[in-house]
Amino acid sequence: MRINRQWLVASRPVGLIKESDFAWQEARVPDLARDQVLTRVVHVSLDPANRGWLYEQDTYIPAVALGEVMRGLAIGVVEESRDDTLHPGDLVQGMLGWQQYAVLPASALTRLPDLPGLPLTAHFGLLGHIGLTAYFGLLDIGRPKAGETLVVTGAAGAVGSLAGQIGKIVGCRVVGIAGTEEKCQWIKNTLGFDAAINYKTDPLIEALAACCPDGIDIDFENVGGKTLDAILSLINLRARIVLCGLISQYNATTPVPGPMNFVNLLIKRARVEGFIVVDYFHRSGEAVAELAKWFKEGKIQYRVEVVDGLENAPKVINRLFDGSHMGKLIVRVSEEPSL
Amino acid sequence: MRINRQWLVASRPVGLIKESDFAWQEARVPDLARDQVLTRVVHVSLDPANRGWLYEQDTYIPAVALGEVMRGLAIGVVEESRDDTLHPGDLVQGMLGWQQYAVLPASALTRLPDLPGLPLTAHFGLLGHIGLTAYFGLLDIGRPKAGETLVVTGAAGAVGSLAGQIGKIVGCRVVGIAGTEEKCQWIKNTLGFDAAINYKTDPLIEALAACCPDGIDIDFENVGGKTLDAILSLINLRARIVLCGLISQYNATTPVPGPMNFVNLLIKRARVEGFIVVDYFHRSGEAVAELAKWFKEGKIQYRVEVVDGLENAPKVINRLFDGSHMGKLIVRVSEEPSL
Repeated sequence: MRINRQWLVASRPVGLIKESDFAWQEARVPDLARDQVLTRVVHVSLDPANRGWLYEQDTYIPAVALGEVMRGLAIGVVEESRDDTLHPGDLVQGMLGWQQYAVLPASALTRLPDLPGLPLTAHFGLLGHIGLTAYFGLLDIGRPKAGETLVVTGAAGAVGSLAGQIGKIVGCRVVGIAGTEEKCQWIKNTLGFDAAINYKTDPLIEALAACCPDGIDIDFENVGGKTLDAILSLINLRARIVLCGLISQYNATTPVPGPMNFVNLLIKRARVEGFIVVDYFHRSGEAVAELAKWFKEGKIQYRVEVVDGLENAPKVINRLFDGSHMGKLIVRVSEEPSL
Repeated sequence: MRINRQWLVASRPVGLIKESDFAWQEARVPDLARDQVLTRVVHVSLDPANRGWLYEQDTYIPAVALGEVMRGLAIGVVEESRDDTLHPGDLVQGMLGWQQYAVLPASALTRLPDLPGLPLTAHFGLLGHIGLTAYFGLLDIGRPKAGETLVVTGAAGAVGSLAGQIGKIVGCRVVGIAGTEEKCQWIKNTLGFDAAINYKTDPLIEALAACCPDGIDIDFENVGGKTLDAILSLINLRARIVLCGLISQYNATTPVPGPMNFVNLLIKRARVEGFIVVDYFHRSGEAVAELAKWFKEGKIQYRVEVVDGLENAPKVINRLFDGSHMGKLIVRVSEEPSL
């Protein structure tokens, strides 16, 4: 009998997530039914969207119910299978959740693409949902043209850091907005952004105007709030706001108004378009091939922060909201298999 | 020597326009320079956008300067010409302004398309900037598909009433929002909207939900504010918000926040796109042909409210904001020529 350790959702967070919003449970791993697969969870991805899944109301996917295992995208190793297409040792990803073992139908799992030379965490830091979000968000929704000015908010985050680098690859002037000097140094000096703005210390509108002398053509928006408003005050004709996230308001306890400069969308004939990476999974191959190629050519870098221990997940997830991490935040639940 | 009567901008309005924001002036009509044309103004179009032109800051066109003749789109008759392409008696439109006579370079004027059987006011009520706004806004930005649900705000206004009817022509379920029972009756019983909501008396969200049992796919937005927020709470996946106007905030004296449900754009992968009809003037022919055809086939109707006398323009323009007019608001400055 195999014992599973799990984080169940105990209550709906009010504001920032508290550890007491989850309950730590030990439970027996059930026997497999036909077509089911037992996966050992290796890495759980912590993402801002997780906060939205804990709302009472459904978002783009149903809310996680109270008493359920906390939902989380994860990478794992198949240990047992009653499905013909997946076998022990196979590496998969899916909504394995905040637990040590997941029993799911094979149809809920995706085999990881085989990418020799890349560590397992690259499937979260460079490829997978993060890479696809940056790739399709910028290229499909943002439609950047060489010479245009791209602003990226949450620029030192997992998605933002990639989106900015893709912007450089396609020939944009790229300005990143982040919340610490260390982040600003990283995106500018290591990732090659043209300019970086520290929204906590720089006067935002003045700094943006100085960094974007030709105005803003594309905004890859992860944050919302005052940052978005400042950007909207400087958009060019036919600007595109790629609405990837609104992290500044995910923990809000009262309704959050939209941007004051909403009217600029009209004046500038600009476009705000929301997107969610799930709509692009069927085009995964195209993004993965391109991202892996850029990585091998040294044109794109990524950064992961791996925190050990499933027990830390409820504490660590708030690092997405307090500005204390860079790149992709991951919780390691169990040993990586040797690749 | 010909005397011109004009409304000059005397001060920038705070809130609603006051008559004292304009100064009535009599001035000599200047002699024509080479390439210039003297036009007698017949009809001046009053449009919500006029309010924006009076802001201190430029919008999509430069602000009207203090001391200048108030800008206004108008139809007129050429009386004298020093240009080879325009001749006395020609009917033209352009930014003739709030005055009896306009002296402009011929390049600033557009000859009215010849449409036998249509009155002159049809160039404002059905065709021209109003028709083009409804036509391209709905079809190009909204991209409606048969069977989709279209909501139109400001639905009894010049643009809204046409946009809703075009929505019916292309097979949408069309729900209009307006501010009086008379308007609701008109758009529903005369224009053929599927449903009408009186935002002043109906509970907005409940009424919208009842009228849009399949959710909202397209919003032709003229109003903004609470109306837009209610609509955003009911949008479907990949909804399109055609941002044509935000009339609820044009007279605001403090900054107006964007919609509370802005985050729904993300969750629903929806798009807000602003547009201004000036970007479509080069495609005018295509819209005019289609609109005139629909009108002849009895598929589309329009309504004009013509107020006599240029002297009334500063008072009458507020009827765009107080909800007291239906269809297209026009000031008649001088006699229509016989067509």
